Amino acid sequence: MRAYDIILKKRNGQELSTEEINFLIEGYMSGKVADYQMSAWAMTVFFRGMTERETADLTMAMVRSGEQVNLSPIEGIKVDKHSTGGVGDKTTLVLGPLVAAAGVPVAKMSGRGLGHTGGTIDKLESIPGFQTGIKKEQFFNNVNQIKIAVAGQTGNLTPADKKLYALRDVTATVDSIPLIASSIMSKKIAAGADAIVLDVKTGCGAFMKTEEDAFKLAATMVGIGAKVGRKTTAVVTDMDQPLGNTVGNALEVKEAILTLKDKGPADLTELCYTLGSRMLVLGGRANTYDEGRKILEELLKSGAALSKLKELVEAQGGDGTVIENEELLPEAKYSLPLKAAADGYVYAINAEQVGIAAMVLGAGRETKEDVIDPAVGIIINKKRGEEVKSGEILATIYYNDEHRARDAERILLAAYTIKNEKPLDRPLIFGYVDETGSYRI
Amino acid sequence: MRAYDIILKKRNGQELSTEEINFLIEGYMSGKVADYQMSAWAMTVFFRGMTERETADLTMAMVRSGEQVNLSPIEGIKVDKHSTGGVGDKTTLVLGPLVAAAGVPVAKMSGRGLGHTGGTIDKLESIPGFQTGIKKEQFFNNVNQIKIAVAGQTGNLTPADKKLYALRDVTATVDSIPLIASSIMSKKIAAGADAIVLDVKTGCGAFMKTEEDAFKLAATMVGIGAKVGRKTTAVVTDMDQPLGNTVGNALEVKEAILTLKDKGPADLTELCYTLGSRMLVLGGRANTYDEGRKILEELLKSGAALSKLKELVEAQGGDGTVIENEELLPEAKYSLPLKAAADGYVYAINAEQVGIAAMVLGAGRETKEDVIDPAVGIIINKKRGEEVKSGEILATIYYNDEHRARDAERILLAAYTIKNEKPLDRPLIFGYVDETGSYRI
Repeated sequence: MRAYDIILKKRNGQELSTEEINFLIEGYMSGKVADYQMSAWAMTVFFRGMTERETADLTMAMVRSGEQVNLSPIEGIKVDKHSTGGVGDKTTLVLGPLVAAAGVPVAKMSGRGLGHTGGTIDKLESIPGFQTGIKKEQFFNNVNQIKIAVAGQTGNLTPADKKLYALRDVTATVDSIPLIASSIMSKKIAAGADAIVLDVKTGCGAFMKTEEDAFKLAATMVGIGAKVGRKTTAVVTDMDQPLGNTVGNALEVKEAILTLKDKGPADLTELCYTLGSRMLVLGGRANTYDEGRKILEELLKSGAALSKLKELVEAQGGDGTVIENEELLPEAKYSLPLKAAADGYVYAINAEQVGIAAMVLGAGRETKEDVIDPAVGIIINKKRGEEVKSGEILATIYYNDEHRARDAERILLAAYTIKNEKPLDRPLIFGYVDETGSYRI
Repeated sequence: MRAYDIILKKRNGQELSTEEINFLIEGYMSGKVADYQMSAWAMTVFFRGMTERETADLTMAMVRSGEQVNLSPIEGIKVDKHSTGGVGDKTTLVLGPLVAAAGVPVAKMSGRGLGHTGGTIDKLESIPGFQTGIKKEQFFNNVNQIKIAVAGQTGNLTPADKKLYALRDVTATVDSIPLIASSIMSKKIAAGADAIVLDVKTGCGAFMKTEEDAFKLAATMVGIGAKVGRKTTAVVTDMDQPLGNTVGNALEVKEAILTLKDKGPADLTELCYTLGSRMLVLGGRANTYDEGRKILEELLKSGAALSKLKELVEAQGGDGTVIENEELLPEAKYSLPLKAAADGYVYAINAEQVGIAAMVLGAGRETKEDVIDPAVGIIINKKRGEEVKSGEILATIYYNDEHRARDAERILLAAYTIKNEKPLDRPLIFGYVDETGSYRI
């Protein structure tokens, strides 16, 4: 077998065999297949696509390239949730306790990565004392006892995906749906998930700018799950404006606590019910999404989910009193209101730009070496569709560094579009994809 | 400027600017653009193509990557001829003396390269004493005095083309028409041609298997010539069966001498008139192809072209008496006839397989290190469309090594298709392409 022939075959529009895909990935890792062949192949995939079978084979080849987490010491069906990434997305902080309160094990291992704000790990670390570097044994014990644990990811998972992604990143081959889908799914599968709920974002703050592409990506990932025996279901959701009202680590933890107190923003609450009900179905706790939703609504309204968050915090060494006294979370020294220059409606809030503004403040990492400031961030006071008067506060910047605040202010101002007309309604949930098909709402 | 953005732009179907193409080629040579980016870009070109302007820019960027031959010491318009490669193609050996006899300077610099038989240089070196390693000054003097010289190519011409070609060769990006066209044209332009006549082959022994692709390649190269101020004209010709009746270095020299004596095969003679008349028009020696053809016919029939070959041989230290005594050329020790197993018609002769058979005998190089045996080769006794009786000789193998002869025999036998029905006529000349358009015959 030769890499040349595999590239040629795909270039000419033919389907690659399982053996050919394995040869490519194994050869790439062993050095037998060169970078310049792999990038040429990735470009053929961009143009020719991959069948469901090929995409599943690529996923599993990447899973086998590294360590695989064995979650069998944990009882029950391990359902993982994955979001394709958004601004102000703190769903895991709400969903984790909510689903765990329902009895479905939440064994969350997260990376740090780069982004507008930190990952779940960084957000939780803004709680005084919270330890994410817990040992494997404690991790398993905690999940078995209180149904939830969140730890930083260790081990060399899917090195082939890392290597291929780094190559795609410099050869304009990132935005290929089968390559994105296999990258995401390989990481989830290597991390030990039995079943996967996907939150595929769409809009200007998402990787998939169009609804059509988001549905395609969702269907591709659900297809991979079906092929490799991991039940997978996806929800396509809005990321045109930030989710909820906060962007920034401690600010997002506060908002998550508020949401678990049933006082959170409507969009975040609704999204957590939607994703959570699917986790309950896949986890065998509910038969239908409606049944799952009812269970979650009760757990939230009764305070059981909030108690679960407190349990989680305390089980990992954190100060559980933050749940009642949110002011114990880190707070920025200064704040700066962003005011509307004219009357009108908030016509659009460019989520990506809001994310960049938060990163500039220090809420996220641009490079791996950047240190996150947990206290800084942005509160969105006016969201899409709301009426504003000149001088009213659109958003508030929480900062520790004057210079960064000025940069963030400039970016944030440009992220808001104010118009005389009210924008058309844009749904939070665009639709669902599961093994039975795609459903647009 | 970043390679990433250039790849992305082409991937998305946009036209690259001159500056972007220059950046890519210069960056590739300096190491700023990586192999894996260049191969990804080449694959985008395979799928998206290039405009005439882009292709011309790529050609000139590759020309500028290395030395450029200055032919200005030679008087007159320097017209070069290029063939896209075929089996039994000895046209240069006939055309060179023919055109030089008409007064158009022939300053031929050839590489050795790989192939079924040697290049023009290898063929000429089968003439006892013939020197191809002559100094530049002698080369120029000879062309000015006798209108013809043939020398091995020296100097580092188009290194970017060499580097890019080597990369395309291992990434399945060779067969892209704009990349092939710019590769060929860059070499001709760097070698100093003022005007270029292209012989674009089509058929099973050619790189362009279909007539359609051959016309596309021809039109692309003519387009480059027009853009960069080198008058270029192309002829699309058959390479489904070998050209003429011989394959092998000394055998081809003999056939060329025979052709200059007006006793050569009809296809070779006709092709030399067709290409030569175009060289005379581009060289300013004739106003029309018909006028050019008449001049060449006279020079051939009068023996002037044959005398010119003798002049060339003697000017470069060769034994000019080979022109009269062809048996002075190297001859193989043994011969082996290939006989028809049944009555019928020669339905097809796979030119590529005949070429491989000749290479197996030692007439060509598979690797750079291979040493050519000038004496060995194949005589085609029956060509396409001819009737044969069982036991009649189809072809004759001339060899010095029994083992190689057996291998060649097996390949050659498989190259012949004998059927009861006569094949449809297949033309020698499929058509022409010049600056006014494409003309199919």
